[in-house]
Amino acid sequence: MLNKSSHPKDVRLACRLQQHSGNTSGLAAGFVQANMVILPKADASDFLQFCQLNPKPCPIVALSAQPGDTGIAAIAADLDIRSDLPSYRLFRHGELVQELPDIRELWRDDLVTFFLGCSFSFEEALLADGLEIRNITEGVNVPMYRTSIRCQSAGKFSGPMVVSMRPMKPADAIRAIQICSRFPQVHGAPVHFGDPAAIGIADLTQPDFGDAVSIKAGEVPVFWACGVTPQLAIAEAKPELCITHSPGCMLVTDIPNSKLALF
Amino acid sequence: MLNKSSHPKDVRLACRLQQHSGNTSGLAAGFVQANMVILPKADASDFLQFCQLNPKPCPIVALSAQPGDTGIAAIAADLDIRSDLPSYRLFRHGELVQELPDIRELWRDDLVTFFLGCSFSFEEALLADGLEIRNITEGVNVPMYRTSIRCQSAGKFSGPMVVSMRPMKPADAIRAIQICSRFPQVHGAPVHFGDPAAIGIADLTQPDFGDAVSIKAGEVPVFWACGVTPQLAIAEAKPELCITHSPGCMLVTDIPNSKLALF
Repeated sequence: MLNKSSHPKDVRLACRLQQHSGNTSGLAAGFVQANMVILPKADASDFLQFCQLNPKPCPIVALSAQPGDTGIAAIAADLDIRSDLPSYRLFRHGELVQELPDIRELWRDDLVTFFLGCSFSFEEALLADGLEIRNITEGVNVPMYRTSIRCQSAGKFSGPMVVSMRPMKPADAIRAIQICSRFPQVHGAPVHFGDPAAIGIADLTQPDFGDAVSIKAGEVPVFWACGVTPQLAIAEAKPELCITHSPGCMLVTDIPNSKLALF
Repeated sequence: MLNKSSHPKDVRLACRLQQHSGNTSGLAAGFVQANMVILPKADASDFLQFCQLNPKPCPIVALSAQPGDTGIAAIAADLDIRSDLPSYRLFRHGELVQELPDIRELWRDDLVTFFLGCSFSFEEALLADGLEIRNITEGVNVPMYRTSIRCQSAGKFSGPMVVSMRPMKPADAIRAIQICSRFPQVHGAPVHFGDPAAIGIADLTQPDFGDAVSIKAGEVPVFWACGVTPQLAIAEAKPELCITHSPGCMLVTDIPNSKLALF
């Protein structure tokens, strides 16, 4: 059985053999997990620029060296991008058309693969420091909100920044800012804390994605740029073809989380 | 005339020759300025422990190697502690008895000198990054407040933590936390932001020391541990003898501010 002690390669192999099709949260603890976006070359250069212009919501962990490449040795040994994630989503012209266990039959020589950092890495660093993460304590998905912060546009890609929220006491928030600042490739430091209205959030109890969490007396909401941001930009851009991981079903890389730390 | 371009040694020499007796703010820009505390050996070990236990309000930049030493070559060439600050304060049993241009006549072989970091260094780093510091903009002393946070006691030294406050927008506060985290020897990261009552401050418009500053819409108060903390602990401890710098009349060291950065 896969568990937190599994080696990343074993998780990927179980996915390839279709022995695991679910969430990767909690598997292969200590290793970077990444969001995946696959686009035709015609759209990939604009999307790359979008990520470069908006590094906090769209931090690039790895990019395929050539269109059509099905592996990226630097992040995962013997990786087959077409099969080594638990579940895939196929979008055509911005519409979700299918959820698939692998994408071998869809593969084309012009497809470019992006892996983007995800919050699992910084959550692990916060927990290791003794901080509480409310969505983990309460066993729910982190609450996420569309904001009034506009991403910088690149070609057809544009949209609002989406943020995730974790409530903390101010002193814990200061510590979380210090820790997350070391990890720019997994969203880095928070982008805001305190007043939700200042970034266009009307009601914290009504997240746009994920689940609401309780906020206790003396706590403030702390907001991080979120990996749902590029998904919204892709939905607005309506590229002819786009393939992503299914929510929560990430690529488990061979990179230890600590390798992403600046210092 | 002394100015921001003066070399630290020239500032110290002007003090020694009693050609400068005022504030050191703005002189020898880019170099660490330090608070000074001189105590008899009998009290110095407890005070050293107090500083070690409370490093955020009492960060030790330098300590005389032996009782009676009048110089610390590592921080200032040819330093004479007895004359090279603009103005000194003499306290006996916790009471201010005299302000003096030098302390040659008071010197004893059992006196131990502490130099503690001050906020000038981190304020310079914040300004260099483009952040606004309200007390500088408004040309007043930073507002400082007694808090309900108790320092850890050491022997006769105890008391509340005093904090300085600078209002900022949340995104600027996050950047300030990042910058100040690099400088633990000049108070480091803030200790609190937001609700003043959470740390026992009743009214931001009524600082215990310094001057009130305006807080604009969308800003939150950000609180840093403050070098007035050890002064209160000394006032409560009532040591037989204590000599400090006069407020604002610091030791100008030869240490570039950047040398205090962790990375």
